[in-house]
Amino acid sequence: MEIKVLKDILSANDQRARENRALLDEHHVFTVNITASPGAGKTSVILETIHRLKDRITFGVVEGDVSSSIDAKMVGKEGVPVVQINTGGTCHLDATMVSNALSNLPLAKIDLLIIENVGNLICPASFALGEDRKVLVASVPEGHDKPHKYPVMFSQADVVILNKMDLLPHTDFDLKAFESAVDGLSNKAQILRVSCKTGEGIEAWIAWLLEQLPAC
Amino acid sequence: MEIKVLKDILSANDQRARENRALLDEHHVFTVNITASPGAGKTSVILETIHRLKDRITFGVVEGDVSSSIDAKMVGKEGVPVVQINTGGTCHLDATMVSNALSNLPLAKIDLLIIENVGNLICPASFALGEDRKVLVASVPEGHDKPHKYPVMFSQADVVILNKMDLLPHTDFDLKAFESAVDGLSNKAQILRVSCKTGEGIEAWIAWLLEQLPAC
Repeated sequence: MEIKVLKDILSANDQRARENRALLDEHHVFTVNITASPGAGKTSVILETIHRLKDRITFGVVEGDVSSSIDAKMVGKEGVPVVQINTGGTCHLDATMVSNALSNLPLAKIDLLIIENVGNLICPASFALGEDRKVLVASVPEGHDKPHKYPVMFSQADVVILNKMDLLPHTDFDLKAFESAVDGLSNKAQILRVSCKTGEGIEAWIAWLLEQLPAC
Repeated sequence: MEIKVLKDILSANDQRARENRALLDEHHVFTVNITASPGAGKTSVILETIHRLKDRITFGVVEGDVSSSIDAKMVGKEGVPVVQINTGGTCHLDATMVSNALSNLPLAKIDLLIIENVGNLICPASFALGEDRKVLVASVPEGHDKPHKYPVMFSQADVVILNKMDLLPHTDFDLKAFESAVDGLSNKAQILRVSCKTGEGIEAWIAWLLEQLPAC
């Protein structure tokens, strides 16, 4: 009974996600869905991306949080159109929430839409939003065992950004163990070692992102 | 319709949590439910607690994870009875899962039962398990804004362990901002500054825990 309800919800979500994707395609908007644990650095990655590329492409951002509009305010300062979704108590964004956000964004003027999902390594994996690519931000202080503990999220990622590399000397994080665990879960995900604090690896991330984008 | 289903689930869970609590009380087992983001250090806190107190009290541990038994193996090495719950895809423990675990633990021989919840700052807040106290482990590299983003979890906590204090000099974490945000959400939660790596604050955590325990 409960499983039936969940299947209905997921199936309705997939349908809405396809509608989002069709709308985004119609407006030539390329969309990435960024997921992570709380505090891994999703917002920092987004801000770095805007800084590096805002003279070349146009952005839109959807900020998903259970509560608060801290991230939307930071992104808004960059002069980028942003919509904050507060989920109330829901632990993920779903396609209907994103659909509502899209109707509040100037899609015709956006090349790249970045959706910052709720900080959670579990449920966002079950809810397609209409994105072209899934980006997972992990971080060094969380530990190298996270791919084993949250395998679905890691297996779906098109790219894994391992952020906070600057903290590596201060932890017992095992890079090889992390990277081989990710490789074991996904044969598509590229792993990028990044520090938003020092700038390490940001160029590689930008290069990866530009490769994905259709010529604009 | 969907809301009705959720209400039914939560109400059934509360009933089962009361049954767990009655069973635990009957066996004089004091129970803590530990929640956190992925990688904040729940397992390290549990291991430190066992190390410091295993000559004085007896332990049981329930390990909740979406996948893997990494944590249960680490705890098992300490000679403590441990049950691993793999939730499959569910992002929290519920009272029924814990009830099943309890039937596999020697309750008559346990003073303190530690339940390590799934790494997630959202949904575990909605599911009572039958615990006496709620312990929230936050960590410095996650950033000081987390209480604003996950207010329900922080407002419910009886104690907030701020772990990874050793990383403070390497981050822009604002202790005052974090602590005043926690204070604003809860007038009961004590905040303990801890580093499982250096041992800082572990004595204060042990003292807090012993104060909660009934004389045994």
